[in-house]
Amino acid sequence: MDRINLASDYEEGAHPEIIKKLAETNMLQSTGYGTDEFCESARNNIRKACECPEAAVHFLVGGTQANATVIDALLSSYQGVVSAESGHINVHEAGAIELGGHKVMAVPQHNGKIRASDVRKVCEIYANDPSREHTVMPGMVYISQPTEFGTLYSLKELTELSTVCREFGIPLYADGARLAYALASKDNDVTLQDLARLCDVFYIGGTKCGALFGEAVVIPDPELIPHFFSIIKQHGALLAKGRILGIQFDVLFTEDLYLNIGKTAIESAELLKKTFREKGYKLAFENPTNQTFVTVENSVLEEISKYAGTDLWERPDPEHSTVRFATSWATDMNKITELAEKLPVIRN
Amino acid sequence: MDRINLASDYEEGAHPEIIKKLAETNMLQSTGYGTDEFCESARNNIRKACECPEAAVHFLVGGTQANATVIDALLSSYQGVVSAESGHINVHEAGAIELGGHKVMAVPQHNGKIRASDVRKVCEIYANDPSREHTVMPGMVYISQPTEFGTLYSLKELTELSTVCREFGIPLYADGARLAYALASKDNDVTLQDLARLCDVFYIGGTKCGALFGEAVVIPDPELIPHFFSIIKQHGALLAKGRILGIQFDVLFTEDLYLNIGKTAIESAELLKKTFREKGYKLAFENPTNQTFVTVENSVLEEISKYAGTDLWERPDPEHSTVRFATSWATDMNKITELAEKLPVIRN
Amino acid sequence: MDRINLASDYEEGAHPEIIKKLAETNMLQSTGYGTDEFCESARNNIRKACECPEAAVHFLVGGTQANATVIDALLSSYQGVVSAESGHINVHEAGAIELGGHKVMAVPQHNGKIRASDVRKVCEIYANDPSREHTVMPGMVYISQPTEFGTLYSLKELTELSTVCREFGIPLYADGARLAYALASKDNDVTLQDLARLCDVFYIGGTKCGALFGEAVVIPDPELIPHFFSIIKQHGALLAKGRILGIQFDVLFTEDLYLNIGKTAIESAELLKKTFREKGYKLAFENPTNQTFVTVENSVLEEISKYAGTDLWERPDPEHSTVRFATSWATDMNKITELAEKLPVIRN
Amino acid sequence: MDRINLASDYEEGAHPEIIKKLAETNMLQSTGYGTDEFCESARNNIRKACECPEAAVHFLVGGTQANATVIDALLSSYQGVVSAESGHINVHEAGAIELGGHKVMAVPQHNGKIRASDVRKVCEIYANDPSREHTVMPGMVYISQPTEFGTLYSLKELTELSTVCREFGIPLYADGARLAYALASKDNDVTLQDLARLCDVFYIGGTKCGALFGEAVVIPDPELIPHFFSIIKQHGALLAKGRILGIQFDVLFTEDLYLNIGKTAIESAELLKKTFREKGYKLAFENPTNQTFVTVENSVLEEISKYAGTDLWERPDPEHSTVRFATSWATDMNKITELAEKLPVIRN
Repeated sequence: MDRINLASDYEEGAHPEIIKKLAETNMLQSTGYGTDEFCESARNNIRKACECPEAAVHFLVGGTQANATVIDALLSSYQGVVSAESGHINVHEAGAIELGGHKVMAVPQHNGKIRASDVRKVCEIYANDPSREHTVMPGMVYISQPTEFGTLYSLKELTELSTVCREFGIPLYADGARLAYALASKDNDVTLQDLARLCDVFYIGGTKCGALFGEAVVIPDPELIPHFFSIIKQHGALLAKGRILGIQFDVLFTEDLYLNIGKTAIESAELLKKTFREKGYKLAFENPTNQTFVTVENSVLEEISKYAGTDLWERPDPEHSTVRFATSWATDMNKITELAEKLPVIRN
Repeated sequence: MDRINLASDYEEGAHPEIIKKLAETNMLQSTGYGTDEFCESARNNIRKACECPEAAVHFLVGGTQANATVIDALLSSYQGVVSAESGHINVHEAGAIELGGHKVMAVPQHNGKIRASDVRKVCEIYANDPSREHTVMPGMVYISQPTEFGTLYSLKELTELSTVCREFGIPLYADGARLAYALASKDNDVTLQDLARLCDVFYIGGTKCGALFGEAVVIPDPELIPHFFSIIKQHGALLAKGRILGIQFDVLFTEDLYLNIGKTAIESAELLKKTFREKGYKLAFENPTNQTFVTVENSVLEEISKYAGTDLWERPDPEHSTVRFATSWATDMNKITELAEKLPVIRN
Repeated sequence: MDRINLASDYEEGAHPEIIKKLAETNMLQSTGYGTDEFCESARNNIRKACECPEAAVHFLVGGTQANATVIDALLSSYQGVVSAESGHINVHEAGAIELGGHKVMAVPQHNGKIRASDVRKVCEIYANDPSREHTVMPGMVYISQPTEFGTLYSLKELTELSTVCREFGIPLYADGARLAYALASKDNDVTLQDLARLCDVFYIGGTKCGALFGEAVVIPDPELIPHFFSIIKQHGALLAKGRILGIQFDVLFTEDLYLNIGKTAIESAELLKKTFREKGYKLAFENPTNQTFVTVENSVLEEISKYAGTDLWERPDPEHSTVRFATSWATDMNKITELAEKLPVIRN
Repeated sequence: MDRINLASDYEEGAHPEIIKKLAETNMLQSTGYGTDEFCESARNNIRKACECPEAAVHFLVGGTQANATVIDALLSSYQGVVSAESGHINVHEAGAIELGGHKVMAVPQHNGKIRASDVRKVCEIYANDPSREHTVMPGMVYISQPTEFGTLYSLKELTELSTVCREFGIPLYADGARLAYALASKDNDVTLQDLARLCDVFYIGGTKCGALFGEAVVIPDPELIPHFFSIIKQHGALLAKGRILGIQFDVLFTEDLYLNIGKTAIESAELLKKTFREKGYKLAFENPTNQTFVTVENSVLEEISKYAGTDLWERPDPEHSTVRFATSWATDMNKITELAEKLPVIRN
């Protein structure tokens, strides 16, 4: 078999329909900065999919950029953003949030998720602290769906988070870098409409979900962030040829492509997980989406590496490695079946 | 005739060779964040074109982003960037440089250019001011080639700027958003090698010069900016699928495409300028590149607008408008010839 | 005669009443951060003097600190502050405003003052610019009373500025570092009540007007800046022993001391100006407050320097110097009389 | 007995010698911004006390200001500051460090202190992380002496921290807001000379240790931070009448006043701690300096509050409070003796 690279879910280009549409429209002329007809069509398709006809939809280039721009737009200088300690903004954005002037207020993660009760605690501690004006005010909550660990917030959990945020008057923001893999998961009960109803801002990930690049920031109530266009520009996040993003999201939101694009990724991840379990591997943590985290002896990893590229997640001890297998919209199920057969059996 | 849109030079997609290569490579797998083979090839081609084998080359997404990231990386907190008052960073980036904490120290523009003597003056005033520690230190110089007005620095002018910067120990940075149109201009005597020799950092524009998007930041001495990768990430300017940028610049720097891609734009702009002069128009300012700025009565503009889309530059008075006609690598010379015939004659 | 130092108006300590009160209260215990009885009394006295019973009054330590904190509190990230090109925030604060992320939008100065018509122009250009979202929005106006040149806004001028600010919905902020010298000037027709009525925020300068240090920021409508206490803390501008500031301003605002403390400074400055004119000197610019700016040949300056210390303002050419003579609340009129006699006569 | 307020150690004004000197020198003239003779003398006295003749010494106004300014000066944009999770910069500065663009990288506290082994771990994780360029680089270490819990680093512990910092090439910075109480403690074995030898920057606290306000930042190798004066100015931390700070530190560093000023505070704190233990109280944590933390039932606190003001530290549960008793240079030992007698006995 050919070696398959599963180190990440952004190893390939874009869904073929996107490439086709980019090629077809290439020599058409259109205005810049997202004011073109493709962006307009994409925005409308997204509004429909979210059942949110008034929403503002902005196309940004990447995830860290979207997070930094949205968070800076939502917070006052004296406010911080509550996040899981394992949240992407807390560990993998090279300090982009702090560069924007804001503290990431880390709370414990439970399988990558935060609990409404922990958000409540942070807000209550602040509210009851006699010297609270000397501390950072919790000004919003950041989650991701799926989380860094590939887990999913249930509708119940998301509703609880939304409720506590609204009780304390702070916005809830969801990073959907891998949202298509949540939407395609059998365990998922949170729809796009739920996100639009329960979050104050969220973004629909393109980069990892079939686009060359791009993330669609959705603001159900556009009055929440005045002058967001200028804020995007000021953060270096405004694409001149905005239509390149519009075309991609227009394709992704035509005929429910986005809702289905993650299916192969989920199926192949399920096969991998099932195989790992059957062959005696230890999953580092369980999740119902496209990432599989396995802890193996280094010698086993060496053997696996002949067949598949993986991403080193961490080294729990010098003899073991936790690695990630990320399937994607582009994964070939046949190759995963082949890989599953090759995976060595673990004897305990 | 069909109406032709000349409002900007980013109205179309990308050079067909780029679309072709994106399609061909679409399902190949490659690693992220610019570590792939396409980026490596593009970097090497750029190094060769610049005769600068040690240069660091980083691919960023857009111009404002590149400017904000480079400038923030080069300056200490107490330093500012010297720029023409008409410089893009001073007027059209929504305060991105200031968001990064730095003052834009505006000096007079002369046809969009700044003079070495003015840079010297700023540096000497600082050096001789007994209370200089209460003021902003000039920490670098920003220019663009071509300028906002489409004019070009001559090799002599660039050498003078470089000399004064090195005398005062501050880096010279050139924004090359439209660099291909400088390189294709008959009046140009500044090569890529000159830029690499005389500037400390510069960027080679892709967005306006044949790419879907992307700018290649070149740092001839890579030690000038330690940890630039982290700085890029922190500024939200790191593309996950870096290879999309690598592929584009690899195509642009294969067989001298970048050196030639601007030629039609220049020829068609020359035809426009010649026609305007012959028909009695007033050019707002002269330049040898792809942008043509004309001041006309509003009624004439209305007539022109039937045939061509333009960009409103400013209104010198309520009855007149200064508009820009921007040709590009994608402009059809036949359409420009047709437009030239249609342009109404001005009678004085 | 003893040599007199007139280089600045912060050469001495504090008004003797302040020192006395600091000594008397020294061993009393009080709570921190401005919550003490002295601050409360000072706040009430200032509210009374401004006829502004609802005003929030915060005591900060210095002028640059007050400006940076207030401006950062008032502006959104995409907004800038309109200021005279000669404004303190634009030239003498080492980039503190830009460090806070904001552009200083310089407009022409006329004897150090800005015109309502220029503010209107900036606001209208922004409002009418089709690409305004790519530019910095004027978000507030900064003035100082007196200005950097010692000149005064008349009530008419201040009213015009206030009117245009309110028309465009942006706050007007006045830096009153030397406000006592404005209030003591015979040419002044702007009272504290006028400032409270026409400005949205202003500060009453202590450092240069009789205090050891300290500036009182007055916000007539306290709802204008929510959480200003936290913003002050975050900017490192919150004094632990706030009572030290409260005591000082309480003394300054007892029995109209602040309204009268500048009188000697004005009288002595008038004597100096009169003497300079009679003896053939060239005043660099006229003003009715405590600073006198004179342009002299360097040899004359050398002679003057035997009797008086001055501050070098600028060198119009290598043979001449413009110097500042600053009188203050602490200036001894007898010494000024003596100096006036010693000043050499200029022969033309 | 009179009620005694022990809520904080900044309840009184300044040491009487300081008030005396401020009064005596009040009408002398001196130049601004720390260039005066008093500052020069204070700097020399501090250099002598630290046995560090080349050190740069800068006088800033307050602790948060000093921390924010020093940390911003030491870090590059992509670096963070390692601190105890209980560190003042992490919990009580309203996000001042993040406002400056930097992450506080919290590590576990052990009685308020951090361990060299934890610093090593953070540095090694960064060094060994294959995706470290996507994370925040540890760029310096922040400690305080005494800590927030009143505990002290031993010479051994400080040496270990210094060693690990130098191994990884990052500066060690000590916040000495209450340094006088460390120096006066019998358990202390870290001298000013040790701090100057083992730290790269530290500040000697004035506000809580006998001054009206002010902190002296000591940089043993002045080349470590170029242009620190401008950085101070830009952070709004430069006092115009710098001499007010110079006079205070000159007094504090004359005849070893600073080394002795904390003695009464220590003795009275020891008496309190001894009394609490004898009367059956539970000390929240042990420390050898001027702060005493006691956890009591709310009804007991109510009784105590008749005799002494305290600072509410936290509520471990609704029925109990942890409160702080802070003695200071100004504490009257007789009153503490009286209070000790009044404290109710706890019966378990």
